[in-house]
Amino acid sequence: MASELRKDPVTERWVLIAPDRGARPSDFVLSSREVDGRLCPFCPGNEDLTPRAIDRRDDPAGNWMVRVIPNRYPAVRVEVPLEREAVEIYDRVSGFGAHEVLVETPHHALALWELPEEQRALVLGVYRDRLSDLRNDRRLRWGMIFKNHGPQAGATLRHEHSQLVALPQIPREPLERWNGAHAHYRRKHRCVYCDILAAELSARVRLVEESRFFVAFCPYASRAPFETWILPRAHAAHYWELTEEDLLDLARIFGEVMRRIDRALERPAVNLMLHTAPLQEPASPAFHWHLEIAPATQRLGGFEWGAGYFINPTAPEEAAEFLREFA
Amino acid sequence: MASELRKDPVTERWVLIAPDRGARPSDFVLSSREVDGRLCPFCPGNEDLTPRAIDRRDDPAGNWMVRVIPNRYPAVRVEVPLEREAVEIYDRVSGFGAHEVLVETPHHALALWELPEEQRALVLGVYRDRLSDLRNDRRLRWGMIFKNHGPQAGATLRHEHSQLVALPQIPREPLERWNGAHAHYRRKHRCVYCDILAAELSARVRLVEESRFFVAFCPYASRAPFETWILPRAHAAHYWELTEEDLLDLARIFGEVMRRIDRALERPAVNLMLHTAPLQEPASPAFHWHLEIAPATQRLGGFEWGAGYFINPTAPEEAAEFLREFA
Repeated sequence: MASELRKDPVTERWVLIAPDRGARPSDFVLSSREVDGRLCPFCPGNEDLTPRAIDRRDDPAGNWMVRVIPNRYPAVRVEVPLEREAVEIYDRVSGFGAHEVLVETPHHALALWELPEEQRALVLGVYRDRLSDLRNDRRLRWGMIFKNHGPQAGATLRHEHSQLVALPQIPREPLERWNGAHAHYRRKHRCVYCDILAAELSARVRLVEESRFFVAFCPYASRAPFETWILPRAHAAHYWELTEEDLLDLARIFGEVMRRIDRALERPAVNLMLHTAPLQEPASPAFHWHLEIAPATQRLGGFEWGAGYFINPTAPEEAAEFLREFA
Repeated sequence: MASELRKDPVTERWVLIAPDRGARPSDFVLSSREVDGRLCPFCPGNEDLTPRAIDRRDDPAGNWMVRVIPNRYPAVRVEVPLEREAVEIYDRVSGFGAHEVLVETPHHALALWELPEEQRALVLGVYRDRLSDLRNDRRLRWGMIFKNHGPQAGATLRHEHSQLVALPQIPREPLERWNGAHAHYRRKHRCVYCDILAAELSARVRLVEESRFFVAFCPYASRAPFETWILPRAHAAHYWELTEEDLLDLARIFGEVMRRIDRALERPAVNLMLHTAPLQEPASPAFHWHLEIAPATQRLGGFEWGAGYFINPTAPEEAAEFLREFA
């Protein structure tokens, strides 16, 4: 059975039913050569284990430094026609969309934040360019780049990589952010994220790090212990508005924040999510792109599952203070 | 710092910041006597390791069969005054509420579904009585009984138990169910869950088990592989409307479903959530209580975290067919 989006008839929350992913030995492996753990499909020399690259960035000698490939076990596929239909009393949408893998370094065992700043800036630039490229497909309304770093965060391969998923609809969480930001804008004619930045820069108790163009802080209503957000100081709805100068500064502060987290929590598993405005929307005065860092230290229990409220045992003020100590 | 509810200023989703729970050796231990793993605070004879019982059910000889106690490391407390206030630009509510633990058997190592049917019916009756009792506190608007069974589901103690949390507000997930059910009712003058039941009994592809008063099926938009819901055939908004005859039949079908899941998935970790109408609401023609069973086979990754969409690799039709085979 192909992937599809299904809507819960009560809450109207969609779920991605993706049976192709059920049997995957790991996320991207072509053959069984990797099962013994010796052959990494993302390492240089093993490119034939993965599909052909969609994009790549080379060093002057022609060796790739970043490689973007289609996911071998995609949750959604661009080749599938976009179909919306009724099934019994229910609603479904075909599994149309993009699912790419960004191999972020030729090195097998280095985290993105252990790489040289220039390499990290290169990767952050590829995020920008992939998102910008996908908006050319007018059917794709939303896209997110995310990283599962470490097995506890859902990673199935160690070699550092991120994923990009783009869909013909805006999922629940980004839709709530988008709608919430616009509700605030209608009332106050201000960006809510700009308001948050001003409040955090004033209170300072949840600040982790500042740079020329960016601010990192633990948000007031953090869902996870040591959750940290990085926002540009200047209002910008789309991540792809970043300049080369911005990218270098972002690479610097992002690396510094992640190294603090690594030192404070002893290299935890981490999820990263890049929240940018929906792909087909013009630059909005209401929405502000942001990078969310969530250490994966907790399990989802029955309370979170059933109530939809997260229980976070670490106050963000304490988390920020602790992170500031690990300069 | 005491627990508190904090509101995300963009999405208006609340988070429970509960620092008291951060350092807990396990959920309920009074002393360090249990740290070596030999002394279980829930076993008979160790009652002095836990707070005094709120409720208990004894056998004819006076030995307890079910024991309800306050959580030693509560996420919320009834002793705290209910306060709603502004902090900087943010909103908080004091950590007022109830957090109880239901020790469901004197046996250390048996799951609820491995106990005799009468014991299971007794436990399901205690669920009813605790929810019914808590509605007497008019400040408590919502309550849920949930179970984290197994470490992967978030359990910190093995001895079989459930938890009850009651709050002065209706959390996101139950509010979406309540509002969604009422939106359906306004359009159609029918209960959406009654419609789902009729659809599932007609299609039959997602049915797992039927009994005199209940139906078990894998929902169309299952968030988790092998997610199974049990609903009463007859419309009822509140779980506490159950009769003794209902309880026995529920104990039977619930036990049978869980044994199928145990055989099919080799005793997985499981989360259970009992969704009943908000505590202070009169019986509603729009809402229908239901028991949600979610095997905890998956980790939350960056996609689920950032998109708010779950990726489920097992189609519910395949899950139900598989469960039906394990009769």
